Amino acid sequence: MDIHTYLKEKRELIDSYLESCFNVPSEPRVLHEAMKYSLLAGGKRIRPILALASYEVCGGKANDIIPYAAALELIHTYSLIHDDLPAMDNDNLRRGKPTSHKVFGEAIAILAGDALLTEAFSMLSNTKMQNSKIKIQNCGNSLSLNTHLSSHISHHSILRVIHEVAVAAGTHGMVAGQVQDILSENSKPDRDTLAFIHLYKTAALITASVRIGPILANSDEDALMALTKYGENIGLAFQIVDDILNIEGNTEELGKPAGSDEKMKKMTYPALFGTEKSRQKAEDLISNAIDVLKVFSSEAEPLRKIARYLIKRRV
Amino acid sequence: MDIHTYLKEKRELIDSYLESCFNVPSEPRVLHEAMKYSLLAGGKRIRPILALASYEVCGGKANDIIPYAAALELIHTYSLIHDDLPAMDNDNLRRGKPTSHKVFGEAIAILAGDALLTEAFSMLSNTKMQNSKIKIQNCGNSLSLNTHLSSHISHHSILRVIHEVAVAAGTHGMVAGQVQDILSENSKPDRDTLAFIHLYKTAALITASVRIGPILANSDEDALMALTKYGENIGLAFQIVDDILNIEGNTEELGKPAGSDEKMKKMTYPALFGTEKSRQKAEDLISNAIDVLKVFSSEAEPLRKIARYLIKRRV
Repeated sequence: MDIHTYLKEKRELIDSYLESCFNVPSEPRVLHEAMKYSLLAGGKRIRPILALASYEVCGGKANDIIPYAAALELIHTYSLIHDDLPAMDNDNLRRGKPTSHKVFGEAIAILAGDALLTEAFSMLSNTKMQNSKIKIQNCGNSLSLNTHLSSHISHHSILRVIHEVAVAAGTHGMVAGQVQDILSENSKPDRDTLAFIHLYKTAALITASVRIGPILANSDEDALMALTKYGENIGLAFQIVDDILNIEGNTEELGKPAGSDEKMKKMTYPALFGTEKSRQKAEDLISNAIDVLKVFSSEAEPLRKIARYLIKRRV
Repeated sequence: MDIHTYLKEKRELIDSYLESCFNVPSEPRVLHEAMKYSLLAGGKRIRPILALASYEVCGGKANDIIPYAAALELIHTYSLIHDDLPAMDNDNLRRGKPTSHKVFGEAIAILAGDALLTEAFSMLSNTKMQNSKIKIQNCGNSLSLNTHLSSHISHHSILRVIHEVAVAAGTHGMVAGQVQDILSENSKPDRDTLAFIHLYKTAALITASVRIGPILANSDEDALMALTKYGENIGLAFQIVDDILNIEGNTEELGKPAGSDEKMKKMTYPALFGTEKSRQKAEDLISNAIDVLKVFSSEAEPLRKIARYLIKRRV
């Protein structure tokens, strides 16, 4: 399998579903536009793809859980909008476009973030569309997919997924990491604080994305534990690579301002260990991630290749 | 029954549960403190109380659904924190105390709101504490209550509740109303826009609060429809009374700045119809609300009295 083709196919599945959700404008129109603007700005869709890939490795069909996977992207996008606000990182560029508050103003940006977060839980808990199908465009072909849960996914599994995502995104996850990130600006970097920021701000939601697969597939504890460790390792590596790219990448390629971490005196891996040691750390984490996948056989190939892709990415 | 005793007892149940949720500090401490600060600032707890009362009218025991009811207060509190931000209404006083951003700064206030919203969905989807009990203080007595769902509440009902709350709080509910509220500042009031703001900003979540009862009790469609109409009527009346109190009340009693709507040129019922016609409109809505309760017998007495209380309240 070619990883770039795999990522493209899965990304198009997610993008088509997200676009279909925002087909019909709602009032007030500016809220609808602000949500669409940030959500459909061409992200990598890493979290949804991880959810689909982990579901497939557990024997499921990706098409059956698209809305659960897509909901992760709503949460990720809300977090980007709020992180970019003047009161936070005060960034002007995201995914190659002016940030939400630059286009719509602060009030609408805050509310668009709030709405995306809330909409994610609406999507995760929607059982009414259980048997309906929609046609979406994927890789040039039109295909039908279940817009919501297959009948073999239990309501209990869905509740577990909602809880998993809420914990990973909230007080004991992403928000805690973002608060610590802000508190640590201008502070002397230390290992424990840095680990806390990366684990909570980034790895928590990535780990939850990977755990969704085995939970929805009702897999055994061994598969869940292996995928949890995979998620934690790639989650930390992902953030370290992000920190390195913030130094070595360029603004045009990244779609967000390069060098912003140093300017804001953010606590990052390169700031504490230098880029070379940080890169080695990320590579070790990726090796660990691939290693724990040995409980699976060839069906884990996409997850292995995603791990390797994450460290080589330039964006 | 005395309505004030009833409200006090239910409020103490909710407050005790909320306090128990924040007993153990989490890191970063400032996030924990900011969430507690706004949540445990002595609100009326109207939404949770409506959920408990509507569950009781459907034959349930209030103690069995405390976390679902309490989750509504987390959502309401997050909305207050975000509404008060400088980019929105820029208010300095709430529930008689300085607003969150005045105490913790804008970044932490935004994130505390985000965390409360997310935590609400964590609370609603938590099935792990299913059989555990905690002791809480209520009216001076110690009592045990289920910290989470009774075994006779189905996972399907819980998913319906989560969806109900997410829709009422998000793009098709509260956030839409808040966006329209901001867009309509300084505009000439018109009936349709005003109805939209009140229905979405306030009545949607109040209606969802009332609908939680019959959904969790697995009541028939007649009960659900009656309570939905009750919710819509008292929800609209609640916001009209809020608008009147903003003119006639005083800052000390209200715990938030009186006269702020006029200052901000908000689109309100009194601004369009004057206070006398607005009061009459609110009274009509309350009469309608009480009228639809006739499908229930004496067990609906608390809901009838809550409706009458809402129009007479001074806070």
